[in-house]
Amino acid sequence: MASFYTDNEDLAYYVDKGIDWAPIVALTEFFHRSPDGFDDAADAVEMYRDILALVGELSADEIAPRAAEIDRQGVTMKDGEVVFSKPLQEVFDKIAALELHGMTLPRELGGQNCPLTVFYLMSELIARADISVMTHNSFHGAIAMAMLVYSLNEGTTTLDPEKGVITETRFAEQIEAIRTSGAWGAMDITEPNAGSDMARLQCVAKQDDEGTWRLTGSKIFITSGHGRYHFVIARTEDAKDPDDPMSGLAGLSMFLAEAYRDNEDGTRERFITIDRLEEKLGHHGSATASLTFDGTPALLVGERGEGFEYMLTLMNNARIGVGFEALGLCESAYRMAKAYAEERVSMGKPIGRHEMIADYLEEMRTDIQAIRALGVTCAINEEKSQKTKMLLDAGFVTDEAERREHEANAKRFARHARRLTPLLKYLASEKSVEMARRCIQIHGGVGYTKEYGGEKLLRDAMVLPIYEGTSQIQSLMVMKDALLGALKNPRRFARRFAQTKWRAASSRDALERRVAKISSLAMSSQQHLLTKTAADKFVALRGQPIQEWPDRFLKRWDPKQDFSYAMLHAERLTQQLADEAVVKILFEQAKKHPERRELLERYLDRAEPRARFLHDQITTTGARLLEKLERDEAADATQRAG
Amino acid sequence: MASFYTDNEDLAYYVDKGIDWAPIVALTEFFHRSPDGFDDAADAVEMYRDILALVGELSADEIAPRAAEIDRQGVTMKDGEVVFSKPLQEVFDKIAALELHGMTLPRELGGQNCPLTVFYLMSELIARADISVMTHNSFHGAIAMAMLVYSLNEGTTTLDPEKGVITETRFAEQIEAIRTSGAWGAMDITEPNAGSDMARLQCVAKQDDEGTWRLTGSKIFITSGHGRYHFVIARTEDAKDPDDPMSGLAGLSMFLAEAYRDNEDGTRERFITIDRLEEKLGHHGSATASLTFDGTPALLVGERGEGFEYMLTLMNNARIGVGFEALGLCESAYRMAKAYAEERVSMGKPIGRHEMIADYLEEMRTDIQAIRALGVTCAINEEKSQKTKMLLDAGFVTDEAERREHEANAKRFARHARRLTPLLKYLASEKSVEMARRCIQIHGGVGYTKEYGGEKLLRDAMVLPIYEGTSQIQSLMVMKDALLGALKNPRRFARRFAQTKWRAASSRDALERRVAKISSLAMSSQQHLLTKTAADKFVALRGQPIQEWPDRFLKRWDPKQDFSYAMLHAERLTQQLADEAVVKILFEQAKKHPERRELLERYLDRAEPRARFLHDQITTTGARLLEKLERDEAADATQRAG
Repeated sequence: MASFYTDNEDLAYYVDKGIDWAPIVALTEFFHRSPDGFDDAADAVEMYRDILALVGELSADEIAPRAAEIDRQGVTMKDGEVVFSKPLQEVFDKIAALELHGMTLPRELGGQNCPLTVFYLMSELIARADISVMTHNSFHGAIAMAMLVYSLNEGTTTLDPEKGVITETRFAEQIEAIRTSGAWGAMDITEPNAGSDMARLQCVAKQDDEGTWRLTGSKIFITSGHGRYHFVIARTEDAKDPDDPMSGLAGLSMFLAEAYRDNEDGTRERFITIDRLEEKLGHHGSATASLTFDGTPALLVGERGEGFEYMLTLMNNARIGVGFEALGLCESAYRMAKAYAEERVSMGKPIGRHEMIADYLEEMRTDIQAIRALGVTCAINEEKSQKTKMLLDAGFVTDEAERREHEANAKRFARHARRLTPLLKYLASEKSVEMARRCIQIHGGVGYTKEYGGEKLLRDAMVLPIYEGTSQIQSLMVMKDALLGALKNPRRFARRFAQTKWRAASSRDALERRVAKISSLAMSSQQHLLTKTAADKFVALRGQPIQEWPDRFLKRWDPKQDFSYAMLHAERLTQQLADEAVVKILFEQAKKHPERRELLERYLDRAEPRARFLHDQITTTGARLLEKLERDEAADATQRAG
Repeated sequence: MASFYTDNEDLAYYVDKGIDWAPIVALTEFFHRSPDGFDDAADAVEMYRDILALVGELSADEIAPRAAEIDRQGVTMKDGEVVFSKPLQEVFDKIAALELHGMTLPRELGGQNCPLTVFYLMSELIARADISVMTHNSFHGAIAMAMLVYSLNEGTTTLDPEKGVITETRFAEQIEAIRTSGAWGAMDITEPNAGSDMARLQCVAKQDDEGTWRLTGSKIFITSGHGRYHFVIARTEDAKDPDDPMSGLAGLSMFLAEAYRDNEDGTRERFITIDRLEEKLGHHGSATASLTFDGTPALLVGERGEGFEYMLTLMNNARIGVGFEALGLCESAYRMAKAYAEERVSMGKPIGRHEMIADYLEEMRTDIQAIRALGVTCAINEEKSQKTKMLLDAGFVTDEAERREHEANAKRFARHARRLTPLLKYLASEKSVEMARRCIQIHGGVGYTKEYGGEKLLRDAMVLPIYEGTSQIQSLMVMKDALLGALKNPRRFARRFAQTKWRAASSRDALERRVAKISSLAMSSQQHLLTKTAADKFVALRGQPIQEWPDRFLKRWDPKQDFSYAMLHAERLTQQLADEAVVKILFEQAKKHPERRELLERYLDRAEPRARFLHDQITTTGARLLEKLERDEAADATQRAG
């Protein structure tokens, strides 16, 4: 029996020793107070491994063989409802039969209480078989989990800290329906005139005379939008003045709406209309719907005006999810290319032995390991942050000192997760496109035909750098976080930079020196962007010590106006910071497990000239283009005035 | 009326002043001896401009509006014949009505006697509307031209030098059929087990008792393989011993076979069977056929064993053609992205004003101008080389001194064309994939749907780095030509390197210094590859002067064995040499036309850090991978021995 889990050594490394499971198990098992929970981390990991082995086989034996047909048949609309193809339905019947939709749900809600991290590892396996299946799949269990998390956030879930169980939760009925009946959810954000720019969302929610919230408007590009439960972002505050914050993000609230209800006579009552499905380049196993809300009743989640904040939680998890899905696609592209290169002979040897092809394959393998390292680290931090906060909020920790320690930990985890998430989303999705392209190229002519799977991978990959926040949006987030972080505490930045340079020059371990050098180049790029940005804003500041900036300038920054030079280079900085994050993580692994040194060396070999290149581009290019943009803006302003 | 010609300033630059038309017109008009030809270059250019204007309108008004349907409907098979869709047939009816199939044919063969360069410029226009239409289109006139060129080569065409006309040519009937009746040709090379590796071709040609050559075997991936006239590479020499050169490229010959003949009663007799069409990712307006030859009668073209040489001529022209087709696709991707970016508003301004998107668009625009510069220069050199040789062979030049001058020119043109062709094929096809991808990314979610044209461009672009020699094959050719060139005359290489460094340091013109610096980095990369290659072969040689190499080593090089380090970096060297070629061409333009300086600066801004990066990669990476490959080879050898 084939398995996408047991054939993957690098993945096994994480499950077997790369991940420190004990703290994750402790948090997941409510500090081991849960009556049916695992007392021992090793026992818990045994179960996680069993689940991954199960999913590994499901992916290899049931999903992968159906992927080409799922792609060919797509999903269709009939009488206002979405119809899955036979192979796609078969796959989801099997997933449901294995009770995977409840994987991460607490036992008292019928789930298996698996860590989020295990869910993400599973995502890679299914995505390696068919990414569109995994995309849809995540709108089952992950939406049920979101219901629980939102309810915890808004205080409509109660936990018993003594027994370590959830005693009541607001969306119990919906969670149960998802877990058992094949229902699933969707996350309705994008509108025709508002993609990345969420301040422009126009869908409206108003309370009727009975106090019921009702939604009106349109949403587009809704993945799995034929689901039953929709988290919907809608505008609750009236504000005509564009300068009123309520006209922007602050006027948005989060709702949970039911799309339909099935009557006992077999008829279906619909509250959200599915207008049409997008005809997409790929992802044919995943329905992408346009929806109309016309007085759709809905439940307000959290407080009015918190919609954007709530959305971010869901979106952060979704971005990590995309990282793992992209990873699965990369793994598939690499293995397909490698198998072909080992078999196809040209000029007297397999093409995989030709230097250029060998170089591509080695880079793919190395990048996949890098993405997995970044993904796992990001997932662990996100999970630990969320769960620590949850247990603190629910009163699981009563000792004050212990509480403070957990709070500090939670903050640290959250900071890491926030930093790593856009790097992961960026790197994994961009690499998935690159690797799918390479897979086709290595196949040559046959790669361009539908007979091999490479072209499907490229079609599937192309959406990954677009949805859940484009690569450009990820880059802007990375850049702003990095630069504002340095601006808020320039002393700390300067100190860290000095330490890093020192380590790069004098560490005894050659690998540590090389890792520090990558960091040092990344910090130098940031310093350059800061200096240039500051210089643009206050030309007079040039040459003044960085320590004096915050008092004079911190409160006067307007990211949209002042960061144009940094915005121009945001993607390059993101690439640099992704490389930095990867080598730091791999170095930590290498310290604990010397067999990982070879991977770090392999990654460094490629990351070093890249770091120099990105630094070079950031520090020497872009002036001409920015001047042109300024001239264009000025010309526009003159025209408007004239 | 829209026109893809008049809306393109950069293209107009070449027609109006960038191209020195006089020598091209002189060669095309048989040194102005042709009775109906243009005496004056300006008159000729007027006609070329009219033709381009016509094709520009055809492309914008007739082809582009049909592109989406041509893509959707594809080409199909019925009763063993290929059927075009209605919109595709309409397009070719219009092209035939305008007599474009005879564009480059001499007037005495019914053509308009246009330069090859004009044909290539036209290719860009049609490809911008739909690249698959252009791909098929080139199998009309270009195959007719190939018939003429092959016949000239083998001496079966006679010209009258006095009157400047062709008096007789072997394939007159076939050329006439292509020009007038909608017949076209194909170029049958690839076989199931022989793609890039042509030495492995197995299709066989044998003479029957009457002396007729008969072809037997299979060919795959034959573009427009449903055409009437097929140039076929087949094996004519028996050689069992794999070390016998006749078992490789030397055993191949070139044939012209007729696929079918239509009887007067409307029935069709077939000599080549179309087995099936490939289901491809894109290029749906172009049929890609698998063919079977079973005793198909054929005409031997040239001498036995010259097949590979003949194929190269055809393939070189086809590679330049792919360059221009890719250019058209780039132009389409850029304009689509730009139009969307100017219209789509996000965060208070059109996304085209956001720094990162502006940066993408500017890079696309700059690269397109670079590819056009490279393409035009390459086309001119190829055309001048071919036509000068042809006129010399046909006895048009009788004065000995004049003859020597023409011979020297022809050699120089051929050398430039040979150097630029793989750079053009590489750069244009790789960039077309990159630009199509960017076009989708700039569109965001809608770019992933079938509603906009970006996804079609990507699907179409993906074959360009594969067919007519993959990017990897182009890179190997570039690398070998560059390094063997330097090895053959190391003194000249060293002198040129010194001169270049001098210019980079001391030229008065800042742009010349920057151009020379790009050259100098490219030469440094070559020197490093040579040193490393030599060092690998004879470790003892390290440190010896480059001047001493040729006598001792030149005759002992085996590119397959000795160039492994250079092979690893072949693609990087190709990128470097493409940048070098571009900046040199743009510098020549800037010297004549100062308004081109801005373009050169724009290109240099991006090429400079890239040159440093590529040089960095070439000189610092790869050792680890090569050691691994050597270990793998050694392990294999041990296994074979054991």
